Amino acid sequence: MTGGRKEGRARLTPPAGETPIIVLVRPQMARNIGSTARAMANGGLFHLRIVAPRDGWPQPDAYPSASGADAILDAAQVFPTVAEAVADCHRVMATCPRPRHIVVPVRTARAAAEDLREIASRNLRSAVLFGPERAGLENEDMACADTLVRYPLNPEHMSLNLAQAVMILAYEWWTAAEPTPPRVLMTNETRVATKGELDGFLNRLMAELDATGFLDNLEKRPGMVRNLRHWFQRGEVTEQELRTLHGVVTELSRGRMRRGRPDKDDALPPWQVEGSKGP
Amino acid sequence: MTGGRKEGRARLTPPAGETPIIVLVRPQMARNIGSTARAMANGGLFHLRIVAPRDGWPQPDAYPSASGADAILDAAQVFPTVAEAVADCHRVMATCPRPRHIVVPVRTARAAAEDLREIASRNLRSAVLFGPERAGLENEDMACADTLVRYPLNPEHMSLNLAQAVMILAYEWWTAAEPTPPRVLMTNETRVATKGELDGFLNRLMAELDATGFLDNLEKRPGMVRNLRHWFQRGEVTEQELRTLHGVVTELSRGRMRRGRPDKDDALPPWQVEGSKGP
Repeated sequence: MTGGRKEGRARLTPPAGETPIIVLVRPQMARNIGSTARAMANGGLFHLRIVAPRDGWPQPDAYPSASGADAILDAAQVFPTVAEAVADCHRVMATCPRPRHIVVPVRTARAAAEDLREIASRNLRSAVLFGPERAGLENEDMACADTLVRYPLNPEHMSLNLAQAVMILAYEWWTAAEPTPPRVLMTNETRVATKGELDGFLNRLMAELDATGFLDNLEKRPGMVRNLRHWFQRGEVTEQELRTLHGVVTELSRGRMRRGRPDKDDALPPWQVEGSKGP
Repeated sequence: MTGGRKEGRARLTPPAGETPIIVLVRPQMARNIGSTARAMANGGLFHLRIVAPRDGWPQPDAYPSASGADAILDAAQVFPTVAEAVADCHRVMATCPRPRHIVVPVRTARAAAEDLREIASRNLRSAVLFGPERAGLENEDMACADTLVRYPLNPEHMSLNLAQAVMILAYEWWTAAEPTPPRVLMTNETRVATKGELDGFLNRLMAELDATGFLDNLEKRPGMVRNLRHWFQRGEVTEQELRTLHGVVTELSRGRMRRGRPDKDDALPPWQVEGSKGP
């Protein structure tokens, strides 16, 4: 998942319609602002607002950790207060692990992402607040938020890096609208073999094994055949893999012929007898 | 979500049973190894293996970015090859964005986490491979994996920071077994008011508004009452908030009395007439 092709900066375009604005409140480290931009780009978010950054803005130190998401940093807006940063937003969520003495709707990151998609679909503008690295959001900041986001995570170690917190939200935002099936077999140019093709191979394999005498024990034969069939069917097999397996059987049979052991009367070495119990 | 309470190192204990082993393959930056440990701690993972780290191991530079997850770094094991790192594992997944010319089952991060939970529940040991920062995993590394994990993310900017990639997997691992309801109202010491309590308040409010003459337009009165009721019921109201609202009504009524405007024959200022259209 890491590494790979270099992204062209020109390709990072603001998404159409309303997408959630990420608001970093009093961030301390330029590197974290850059990493936030990278995480936003990963999850298809573009709009970054910064409230009272400790070291001012712009900061050249933010760019290296943005890993090409420079357009997000270039377009970032700075505000003196949270209230001003969200004044044009219709809905504001805040990420905060332990607010006290307030009554507020709480969402998991996943439910928050679903809600943000729903809000965007109604063409309303939303923002998500992230507090400073050490202290988190203050009650004053929370007052601007209508919803609280809490990530379910290990209570023994809840402290998330700022960019990691943004990453999880951006990931959930992207995933909430992602149609990728959760489970597939990547087959490239080939396709999954049909049961008929698999049967053709297995029948041939059994015939070859009968020829060697591997299946000579008539009492055990049905169970051994069944076991082999089940093993070959445990995962999906592609048509190309079946052709390779046909080739393997051909080669092993020819080898047997070449070694002058054309039929089942050969004495087998001990490990092959062992193997005859079936896989 | 960021910041907050300092975690005691002593509290970070290895989880019971089999939990997925994170395998960093040829990692380059000590800081990323530390951030990986932090992300693992966030998601309840503990077992870290490192294959051929560029700068050797242990590296003191890994500890600051681990943010207290030192126990994971202390217990990390080093191996010369991927094959040796996973030799005692029953299942191996690999994170890789673009493998070529292989036929392999592919999972999204979410489905992978569900599968890892299922594997662990059968007491089998699993590992997840993460490639080096720039190049990602090589085909040789992939050969040890039975399953590929691909995160659905913005195709315009797929390059994930190493620790971010681990974070998403650790987050999904934790979430797959997390019972937190996605949507709640955090009410602290109070509780959501019943419809009867809300009715009691609304009836009193209407009586006070009738006394001021705010609802005097008999034709419009039913619609205005309905609108106010709907607005008050749009979000859940707590019993404590209702008491506060009762106090607000009492205070506003008393103020009216004090200003010598005890009943509805007062002339209203223009903005109150405007307001009488209802919210």
